[in-house]
Amino acid sequence: MNEYVYGIDIGGTNIKLGLFTLPGMKMIDVKEVETPRQNQETSIFEKIGSIILEMNQVNGIEFKQVKGVGAAVPCPVKNGHVDKCPNLKWNKLDIIFAFNKVLPDHVRVAVSNDATLAAYGENQILEKPYKNAVFYTLGTGVGGGIIINGEILEGATGLGGEIGHMRVFDGATETCGCGSQGCLEQICGTSGILNYTKELSLSSTSSIDFKNLSVKSVFDAAKAGDKVGLQVINRVAEYIAISASIIAVILDPDVFIIGGGISKAGSFLVDLISQHYQKHARFSSYKVPFLLASTGNDAGIIGAAYLIRKQI
Amino acid sequence: MNEYVYGIDIGGTNIKLGLFTLPGMKMIDVKEVETPRQNQETSIFEKIGSIILEMNQVNGIEFKQVKGVGAAVPCPVKNGHVDKCPNLKWNKLDIIFAFNKVLPDHVRVAVSNDATLAAYGENQILEKPYKNAVFYTLGTGVGGGIIINGEILEGATGLGGEIGHMRVFDGATETCGCGSQGCLEQICGTSGILNYTKELSLSSTSSIDFKNLSVKSVFDAAKAGDKVGLQVINRVAEYIAISASIIAVILDPDVFIIGGGISKAGSFLVDLISQHYQKHARFSSYKVPFLLASTGNDAGIIGAAYLIRKQI
Repeated sequence: MNEYVYGIDIGGTNIKLGLFTLPGMKMIDVKEVETPRQNQETSIFEKIGSIILEMNQVNGIEFKQVKGVGAAVPCPVKNGHVDKCPNLKWNKLDIIFAFNKVLPDHVRVAVSNDATLAAYGENQILEKPYKNAVFYTLGTGVGGGIIINGEILEGATGLGGEIGHMRVFDGATETCGCGSQGCLEQICGTSGILNYTKELSLSSTSSIDFKNLSVKSVFDAAKAGDKVGLQVINRVAEYIAISASIIAVILDPDVFIIGGGISKAGSFLVDLISQHYQKHARFSSYKVPFLLASTGNDAGIIGAAYLIRKQI
Repeated sequence: MNEYVYGIDIGGTNIKLGLFTLPGMKMIDVKEVETPRQNQETSIFEKIGSIILEMNQVNGIEFKQVKGVGAAVPCPVKNGHVDKCPNLKWNKLDIIFAFNKVLPDHVRVAVSNDATLAAYGENQILEKPYKNAVFYTLGTGVGGGIIINGEILEGATGLGGEIGHMRVFDGATETCGCGSQGCLEQICGTSGILNYTKELSLSSTSSIDFKNLSVKSVFDAAKAGDKVGLQVINRVAEYIAISASIIAVILDPDVFIIGGGISKAGSFLVDLISQHYQKHARFSSYKVPFLLASTGNDAGIIGAAYLIRKQI
């Protein structure tokens, strides 16, 4: 009897489900649905339950063949408990209990933070996963995930790997979404990038199309040699490098891996980060390499599937 | 037959040896000797071998009762190998091999960084050791040690916990001993404290005795309400707090513990750090408590002894 696990990435907009074989972890089906808006403490899990049933049928699988479900959630989570999830209307919710209500008893459930699981997934698909790795997920916000001794670092309250909120600069004039100032995300998140682009364009000419301004257009302009674009991306790369130099004297990881939407800029960005890192790294930590993530949008479901595979 | 381990703290000036009972870990003897200056790659180990023999005799112990030796060294170390030790003339030295040459075959050896082992020792003597803890050792330099899941975090190259070299400020005009700029140690190490005291005294009157200026005199003045002293110590406390706020969004530890020579200032310093930390902490990490270390100068030998006890 073939056995399977599901990896599920629960986002504020969409829920993505992947069906994986055991033990080979081949993804044989994937489905994406809209996140229900009402009664999210129950509706999200009911919807996932019904989609799993549907995917089981489409793939000719009986529920007894499904050994577990791994879930990635967009907020800090500790031992399956979420205190508060800003992107979903969840308050003091026991995610494992919520899943148990819509799944047969034999199905094991594991849950962790989405950026952390993206990191874990990214690492697990490597031929030889790193023992100690730090992952950046660069998108609207700046997230992260940390693997120590092959294990996800969740931290005392589930905040482990929230590297977007490292204080990396003095004299901030604006406040970050987290309520503090000087956060990495204020420079390297989407708003930081677009605002700095607009600011520089007041005093410099630029080929960037400001009517359709996006992070991608800034990167494209930078790659084409546009002065404003280059200055913006250079600042992003330098602050990622500064934050990495700090992480290196704390954790001294084997590798930094850059993922998330912005990482689509590819080796152009990673090369720039590496150059700045050489300047800022302390002691022997200049040797720590930077790699580009390769799982793309599936990192969350892959990580979630690997998490539950490990626990069953 | 009673069994024992030695915990040894190898410093640039002195070597300290503690003799501990197994499994109770009671320290029954302690001895401190000067670090040999010549041929340190062999002489240090020969001297330790002869002191152990002497301590065995004094305490009526035969060598077969000594199960292991734990050693703390003042430099990054990885799997027992030291690449370079600035305080001792060691280059690419295998510490375990060097010990094996002066100890009987049955004696197991373990080695780690001194600040890390001080952290480990400090944690192990607690009634219930923390699972995840970050230790600051504030002295001439600023060191640190990190415990994750009850294990010492050594890192890929032995740099784990070198938190004195976190970049915590912009626009540095001086270079740190590590060759970089903006390090925590530049503000919170002895030089940083004394230089800032002198700088402030140019424009403020102060009760500090500048002829016998020391970190202790600055702290004493601050405690007595001296304006310059207070300003200096306040800056130290704020930057420790800033660095802790950064570590909290990376590791999310259960506790911060403040040790090292400067920590003799006691709760005065820890209270100030806690106050600043409340301002700088992100999300739920404001809850992480700060404690004062309690093992004092014996933290290194205690940590080294616990390290080897764990490995035998």
